[in-house]
Amino acid sequence: MSRMPRYKLVIEYHGGPFRGWQRQENGPSVQEAIETALTKIGEISAEGAPPLVYGAGRTDAGVHALGQVAHVDLSRDWPPFRLMEALNFHLKPQPAAIRAAELADPGFHARFHAVERRYLYRIIARRAPLSLEKGLAWRRVRPLDVAAMREAAAHLIGEHDFTTFRAAQCQAQSPVKTLDALEVSDATTPGAAESWEREIRIEARARSFLHNQVRSLVGTLERVGAGAWPPQRVAAALEARDRAACGPVAPPHGLYLETVVYPAAPAPSTDAL
Amino acid sequence: MSRMPRYKLVIEYHGGPFRGWQRQENGPSVQEAIETALTKIGEISAEGAPPLVYGAGRTDAGVHALGQVAHVDLSRDWPPFRLMEALNFHLKPQPAAIRAAELADPGFHARFHAVERRYLYRIIARRAPLSLEKGLAWRRVRPLDVAAMREAAAHLIGEHDFTTFRAAQCQAQSPVKTLDALEVSDATTPGAAESWEREIRIEARARSFLHNQVRSLVGTLERVGAGAWPPQRVAAALEARDRAACGPVAPPHGLYLETVVYPAAPAPSTDAL
Repeated sequence: MSRMPRYKLVIEYHGGPFRGWQRQENGPSVQEAIETALTKIGEISAEGAPPLVYGAGRTDAGVHALGQVAHVDLSRDWPPFRLMEALNFHLKPQPAAIRAAELADPGFHARFHAVERRYLYRIIARRAPLSLEKGLAWRRVRPLDVAAMREAAAHLIGEHDFTTFRAAQCQAQSPVKTLDALEVSDATTPGAAESWEREIRIEARARSFLHNQVRSLVGTLERVGAGAWPPQRVAAALEARDRAACGPVAPPHGLYLETVVYPAAPAPSTDAL
Repeated sequence: MSRMPRYKLVIEYHGGPFRGWQRQENGPSVQEAIETALTKIGEISAEGAPPLVYGAGRTDAGVHALGQVAHVDLSRDWPPFRLMEALNFHLKPQPAAIRAAELADPGFHARFHAVERRYLYRIIARRAPLSLEKGLAWRRVRPLDVAAMREAAAHLIGEHDFTTFRAAQCQAQSPVKTLDALEVSDATTPGAAESWEREIRIEARARSFLHNQVRSLVGTLERVGAGAWPPQRVAAALEARDRAACGPVAPPHGLYLETVVYPAAPAPSTDAL
């Protein structure tokens, strides 16, 4: 029996119209959209079931992705470019697109082999409602102190028990995670109407995250930026290992799964000395 | 008779749902949206007419603005912040927002006093359809050569007869304009799936532009980037002073009126030596 070829897909989507990545009963999901597109190109079992698409991260309802990664086994040998084009044709008009497709190692697993996930969170601090960026960033109507947010973020880097920043429904076996980076940067573009107006980007990098961890961290850093919390209180909140010590959870529409990193392929062996 | 106070407004909008800036019979316009919001806050003549809002630039249907500027005379003395907030309340849910409001000099004219207009054009070169940036940039599905586009742009800087890059319906008295800058920059963000994928931004600056001039310039530069035109052909097209020599006109949804510049206010006189 011949092995089915496995493909790796890189996927972008606007989280707005989806109930999240994962297929579910009560609404559209990105996983289902891709699986349905696969059936449209003839990838369907004798029982009418679509191939199963495995994603690297289960983004929540409303969360965007620039580079979600998934794998799927198909019945035919698709030239990767043709597969990408065919899926994009059938995904229209949904705001989801395959950015890249490639033939993967038969043992490749999008979720279990990921060594780093990078999330980006966009906050726009300004008084006026968002028009061009509506649904693409979290608006705060008061000034935010970027330096204070950076100071607070520094307390969170490294290996910690992140119980404080974990959703009640989180299913991870351990609350201990290693946060490799939590970078707060000023991405303000020209045209700010008031001198205090800012776009602040927060990039979080880790092998894996707890459920709602990034949004919990961002919501807490926002409290520091707004001056409601001194930066030191974030260290105390982490220490507390208590969900009640967390700041508010930031809304999903500012969050992007930016990229998923895998180990570099082993260098081809060579006969050279 | 007391003079009516004049206000300067800075306005952001998503061009998608509008037929352009200017009020017209056959569809919604940004000017009308703001004028209607003004009537909702009681700024309405005895005959039921709204105050006239004068914009710095008449953006076409589908063109966005980050910083359109307008002026309007009102019947009451509005604290500028309150005016901005009240208008934004009544503009909802339309994708248009007042980013700043201030009391202006009674002689201030948004259109005639502008000394520079800056337009931004966003091109995204990639194979996959846009999901997050849909309607916010022009997608091209083949690689673009940024260096060649820059070389071509250099031919267009300065004072020229821009007849080639002017819409047939343009009403300007003279086709001679001075293009202060036409900067082609690589704004590619991390996560490009293929090495040739790019976001290219073109910024055009001039005191004023001919109708469709920026989109005509961008469409022509795109031909150069795609390798269909050698950069030198752009110089020849400009020389020709013939609309038929122009490249295709780039679509409106990649274009943004970025900002409008006015002369610095005269320094307050001082009694100091």
